[in-house]
Amino acid sequence: MISVGEAKNILAKVCKPLTPASIPLQKAMGLVLAQNVFAAVDVPAFNQSSMDGYAFLFEDWRGTETLMIEGVVQAGSHLESPVQAKQAVRIFTGAAVPKNLDTVVMQEKVLVQGNQLIIKDDLLKQGGNVRLKGSEIEVGDLALEKGTKLSPAAIGFLAGIGIKEVLVYPKPRVKLIITGNELAQPGEPLGYGQVYESNSFAVSAALQQMGIDAVISFAKDNMEELKVVLEDGLKDSDILLITGGVSVGDYDFVANTLADCGVEKLFHRIKQRPGKPLFAGRKGNQMVFGLPGNPSSVLTCFYEYVVPSLSQLMNTTTSIIQYKSLPLAHSFAKANKLTNFLKAHCTDEKVTILNAQESYRLSSFATANCLVCLGEDEINYNEGDMVEVHLIN
Amino acid sequence: MISVGEAKNILAKVCKPLTPASIPLQKAMGLVLAQNVFAAVDVPAFNQSSMDGYAFLFEDWRGTETLMIEGVVQAGSHLESPVQAKQAVRIFTGAAVPKNLDTVVMQEKVLVQGNQLIIKDDLLKQGGNVRLKGSEIEVGDLALEKGTKLSPAAIGFLAGIGIKEVLVYPKPRVKLIITGNELAQPGEPLGYGQVYESNSFAVSAALQQMGIDAVISFAKDNMEELKVVLEDGLKDSDILLITGGVSVGDYDFVANTLADCGVEKLFHRIKQRPGKPLFAGRKGNQMVFGLPGNPSSVLTCFYEYVVPSLSQLMNTTTSIIQYKSLPLAHSFAKANKLTNFLKAHCTDEKVTILNAQESYRLSSFATANCLVCLGEDEINYNEGDMVEVHLIN
Repeated sequence: MISVGEAKNILAKVCKPLTPASIPLQKAMGLVLAQNVFAAVDVPAFNQSSMDGYAFLFEDWRGTETLMIEGVVQAGSHLESPVQAKQAVRIFTGAAVPKNLDTVVMQEKVLVQGNQLIIKDDLLKQGGNVRLKGSEIEVGDLALEKGTKLSPAAIGFLAGIGIKEVLVYPKPRVKLIITGNELAQPGEPLGYGQVYESNSFAVSAALQQMGIDAVISFAKDNMEELKVVLEDGLKDSDILLITGGVSVGDYDFVANTLADCGVEKLFHRIKQRPGKPLFAGRKGNQMVFGLPGNPSSVLTCFYEYVVPSLSQLMNTTTSIIQYKSLPLAHSFAKANKLTNFLKAHCTDEKVTILNAQESYRLSSFATANCLVCLGEDEINYNEGDMVEVHLIN
Repeated sequence: MISVGEAKNILAKVCKPLTPASIPLQKAMGLVLAQNVFAAVDVPAFNQSSMDGYAFLFEDWRGTETLMIEGVVQAGSHLESPVQAKQAVRIFTGAAVPKNLDTVVMQEKVLVQGNQLIIKDDLLKQGGNVRLKGSEIEVGDLALEKGTKLSPAAIGFLAGIGIKEVLVYPKPRVKLIITGNELAQPGEPLGYGQVYESNSFAVSAALQQMGIDAVISFAKDNMEELKVVLEDGLKDSDILLITGGVSVGDYDFVANTLADCGVEKLFHRIKQRPGKPLFAGRKGNQMVFGLPGNPSSVLTCFYEYVVPSLSQLMNTTTSIIQYKSLPLAHSFAKANKLTNFLKAHCTDEKVTILNAQESYRLSSFATANCLVCLGEDEINYNEGDMVEVHLIN
């Protein structure tokens, strides 16, 4: 058995970012750029009015009281013929300022008499209300750096500079195999000795939080069947998650069958509760996790080990989990010399460990907003002691 | 023009939670329960072994040194015939403890000689390693309260107690209409006077953060065409978002055309920058937002007004946005007496307002992690002044 820290270090060393892939910008939300992105065009691509008003040449205005209004430029169109001296053009927000004009006056600051334009804007300067060509970015300029995580604004920014596809670290392809002879699906009648299967529900939901859809299969506690399902799970996946069958009982076939499938063990069994029997392995660049079958163990191991590994595959340092320190709201005595991950509820000020910590129970997890991590050695904690909090919701 | 606070108050009053709907548990991640949920079964539904080991009657062990091993119970199966006095049964984690037995000893704490079981566990108590029927929850007991936001653990918990469908406040059906004659799609060649359309990309990505897929349409700045598209947008949607055409220019048809479609105006124009021309309306229970067309205005109005409205429709108090106060890292002078929403970057300690705040630009938004909200009246801010920060990523 290894410690939690050793296990996390092994995973941190082994998990490598996935091979970058070029994907449509619409599918890149939350993913990390695998190369620098450069502007495909000048933005704006022309001198652009930022107002509804009138475009004119500033020098013309200095020499005269009134300008003659000739022509209209709506957004998306442009004037075909050049504007003559002392002429102004009706223009709208986003429209191209005709090439020999340089300034726009807001429509609220003019008098229009027939075709005559009288400008009443003492503060207006040359170039006013005009967004110069390339003022957001010039063609070929660096728009976003490799390593940028794409937010909605970043996605919009890239669209606006003409980018259609981006090279990113893709979402991992996740397969999830649920093992256990005792499992029935919610909604089915429950035979004596059966329990409702919940791990596929909880793990899928947690993966959804990361924008990942898992492919789910089921297997009985039977070596032959398990091997077929595991081999299938290892096809076209970046990460394979298995629940159950990973302890040392006579029907715990997962670790041995994974070895038969060519999966190299990284570790098996960790000095922690819940989730002591956790198995991690790899086959080439594929990561494999054998999660203990108890619902609370599965979800704890998912948050503590699988989520950081998924983040590494996606080459991101951010996570659905936030880590902080908070004072305990009460004293607490651990039952053992293992690292404990305890369902808890925290406010900004303090954290309270909940009842119902047993690994087969999810009732406390269902209302928890964090896990408290208490290290191996310390047994007794006092009210006010600072503890490690992993925010999960 | 109304203030930001007035606009937010109007929306808070008008937006009502959607009509609850019964949906499959697998699709309920992040949604809020619209009714109390009660356990459909006892969990566990039988006395259940929590270990791989041997089940026996505690009283039998007190009277004798050895027990006779007779039979095996694997998880998911059960013994057909009752166990005789002084007999023990091989049992595995999750399996049903035979009805006349009460205690399980771990397999690590026994000696087995042929069929004879010798228990070496001085600390073992009656009932040890047995999860009593109904110890997680009893049939008919309240499992989760109305108003609970369903986390992965909550989803798993409900599956485990036999729940297949839940009554929740559903995800709003969102339609998004992008208006503008000047828009080209990224990847297409850009005609003179055209700009690449980015609002559908940014808003869709932001909706994805909330687990919502929008239906997107496009319309030219033409009243007849716009009316057809708006009428379609008002069909089968809970919230209609329109970008562009909402200012007061000759080609800004959105507000008037919405009125023609029977949309009641809630407000139009807010004392803020960016996003001054924002329009909000409703038709029955449908919410309608006319977002100004500049990319930065669209996304700012989305975060400041649409996100809180979506949360209200889903009856949740949590949001993709977190609100906090932080000291400014530098002095700052506002350019006007409007509420300013400024692209910024914050750490845990302080917040820095970024360059490139113009509403047509997204470059600063692309690397921002928050908006700083500075109120109408104050113009000059000093380094260290506490300001309102809206965390967006």
